[in-house]
Amino acid sequence: MSSTPAELLAHAVAEARKGRDEGGVPIGAALVVDGEVVAVGHNRRVQLDSAIRHGETDCLENAGRLPASVYARATMVTTLSPCDMCTGAILLYKIPHVVIGENRTFYGGEDLLRARGVDVTVLDDPECIALMEDFIAREPGLWNEDIGEP
Amino acid sequence: MSSTPAELLAHAVAEARKGRDEGGVPIGAALVVDGEVVAVGHNRRVQLDSAIRHGETDCLENAGRLPASVYARATMVTTLSPCDMCTGAILLYKIPHVVIGENRTFYGGEDLLRARGVDVTVLDDPECIALMEDFIAREPGLWNEDIGEP
Repeated sequence: MSSTPAELLAHAVAEARKGRDEGGVPIGAALVVDGEVVAVGHNRRVQLDSAIRHGETDCLENAGRLPASVYARATMVTTLSPCDMCTGAILLYKIPHVVIGENRTFYGGEDLLRARGVDVTVLDDPECIALMEDFIAREPGLWNEDIGEP
Repeated sequence: MSSTPAELLAHAVAEARKGRDEGGVPIGAALVVDGEVVAVGHNRRVQLDSAIRHGETDCLENAGRLPASVYARATMVTTLSPCDMCTGAILLYKIPHVVIGENRTFYGGEDLLRARGVDVTVLDDPECIALMEDFIAREPGLWNEDIGEP
């Protein structure tokens, strides 16, 4: 029995909470293939002093090197609308489905994903919104750094 | 005196050769700010078993966390037309100039970069082309993996 998008989102939210508890940017992701979570990840800008470890890219890195045939059956689950880099990573690997927790606090590359044929589901999840609203209020400079804003 | 695009490319080509000599994908990059190379990088899929360390993303990671005001004065120099992920990383950080060694062996996100206002220069450099042609002939499976192809 396959999981609902909301059930899949729980894996990404657990990662976002972990990121928050580590003092980082509270965005999490999970890569699901054939109904199984094959990797999770969260934004580690602060934890690793990283410019490229966003939730989705951290998750892809944790998943390791996978053949195209696996990505072709995958769903990328993320708590927040993916930025341009993470949108590009999803497109590079031709991941056909993306589940997004919310896009109110940040609107990323969803239109490009859809234009390139990716199936995008946005859940408007209250916990995802609260995690980001609290973070942006607490750490506006860090948030702007993470999305390339002055 | 500012460097020409061909002079800047030499830094990225040196990285691509390093990648080749390490047994990896021979693509290199350099981030140049105010005429100074602030970081270099090369594709490390093989070396780090990485799904996200392409030339440009490795270079951005090596550059560390930078404020938007620095990226705003930067040029990303890369030996090969950037894939969707690296295109997205350039857009995320609003890097205004991109110098590309060649786009014959792979045509990435140049049109999207230009559509989003990025100044793109393609040099059609014979060494960059030769590095990739040799690599693709030697390691077609690895190359397809790197660009998400079956």
